[in-house]
Amino acid sequence: MFVMISYDVDVKRVAKVHKILKKYLQWTQNSVFEGTITEGKLKQCMGEILGKINPKSDSVYIYRVSNPKNIQKTVYGIEKDFESIFL
Amino acid sequence: MFVMISYDVDVKRVAKVHKILKKYLQWTQNSVFEGTITEGKLKQCMGEILGKINPKSDSVYIYRVSNPKNIQKTVYGIEKDFESIFL
Repeated sequence: MFVMISYDVDVKRVAKVHKILKKYLQWTQNSVFEGTITEGKLKQCMGEILGKINPKSDSVYIYRVSNPKNIQKTVYGIEKDFESIFL
Repeated sequence: MFVMISYDVDVKRVAKVHKILKKYLQWTQNSVFEGTITEGKLKQCMGEILGKINPKSDSVYIYRVSNPKNIQKTVYGIEKDFESIFL
């Protein structure tokens, strides 16, 4: 399945959440990740994230699309590469 | 159709892009908007945005899902309300 995950967490937890998501998905831009993943791997990923975030102040949104053919992505402007910006 | 739009633009253009997107869609978190919209309205929305952004440094990602039934959204943590944070 295809997933798009966006997160909005306290600045001191951004790097931790980014690092976990990077193991499972591809970074898109800002606090958005996307990619194809199994339900099991997603569960594992979310388990790691929920161990780091504060559910009273942070949030993580998951958009699941069972069949990747049902989602169409269009990019306007430049496609950014996280590594080139931050590393 | 259902769309999810995320943007990554220079800080001086964030408010302008946010204001345009807010006319057409619902703000989700950070630089992410979502909602149901027609292809015509989306074209109109993107026309406004492209008039504001710099395609050499900014980027806007659109994820389209023709049938909203094909997308499933899950929220972990709190659901934020832009108005309560910024206004």
